[in-house]
Amino acid sequence: MPSLFTKIIRREIPAKIVYETDRVIAFHDISPMAKVHILIVPKQETATINDFNESSASVMADCFLAAKQIAQDFGIAESGYRVVMNCNGDAGQTVFHVHLHLLGGEPLGGFA
Amino acid sequence: MPSLFTKIIRREIPAKIVYETDRVIAFHDISPMAKVHILIVPKQETATINDFNESSASVMADCFLAAKQIAQDFGIAESGYRVVMNCNGDAGQTVFHVHLHLLGGEPLGGFA
Repeated sequence: MPSLFTKIIRREIPAKIVYETDRVIAFHDISPMAKVHILIVPKQETATINDFNESSASVMADCFLAAKQIAQDFGIAESGYRVVMNCNGDAGQTVFHVHLHLLGGEPLGGFA
Repeated sequence: MPSLFTKIIRREIPAKIVYETDRVIAFHDISPMAKVHILIVPKQETATINDFNESSASVMADCFLAAKQIAQDFGIAESGYRVVMNCNGDAGQTVFHVHLHLLGGEPLGGFA
């Protein structure tokens, strides 16, 4: 079964896409927790951080370069932003296709 | 001026180190916000995510593989954990040498 995010990548489910390369896609979170809340998703499905290997983890470089670019595009690079990846239950991971939350546009408070 | 974290890498300031490779070091946060709170730090100084380039960003793969290993070592891989990187004021970044927070060991609540 393809993940919810793979369906977005395949354009089977709509999303407000803000950034895309051959390895990464990014779109607005449908339940934003800050004025800016974007999800940055590797196109290759990996369920959780626990499932990364040396090869698949290389996409995290792409994800952080995407975060940098998106923060510039949204005008929040200097004011600040946070990137978050949740793994399993204690962190509240709900979609088991790794994704990096990018949050900003206002003071963000604590993170645990 | 070397950053606080570079001084830890050079063993000029003590820290409870839990993981180290040639590219990354990890140690306990001195003000933990969860039962497990580890900082994962690239040895090469980069001030913020905004300063990453294609070359320096590759260390994020190492940071996520470090997170996976440390979570296993602390017995929180299955219960869950969160990784967070803050950039500039709205996110509360205080040390301008990029670092990935790893938090777990209990339910973590929200992240913004």
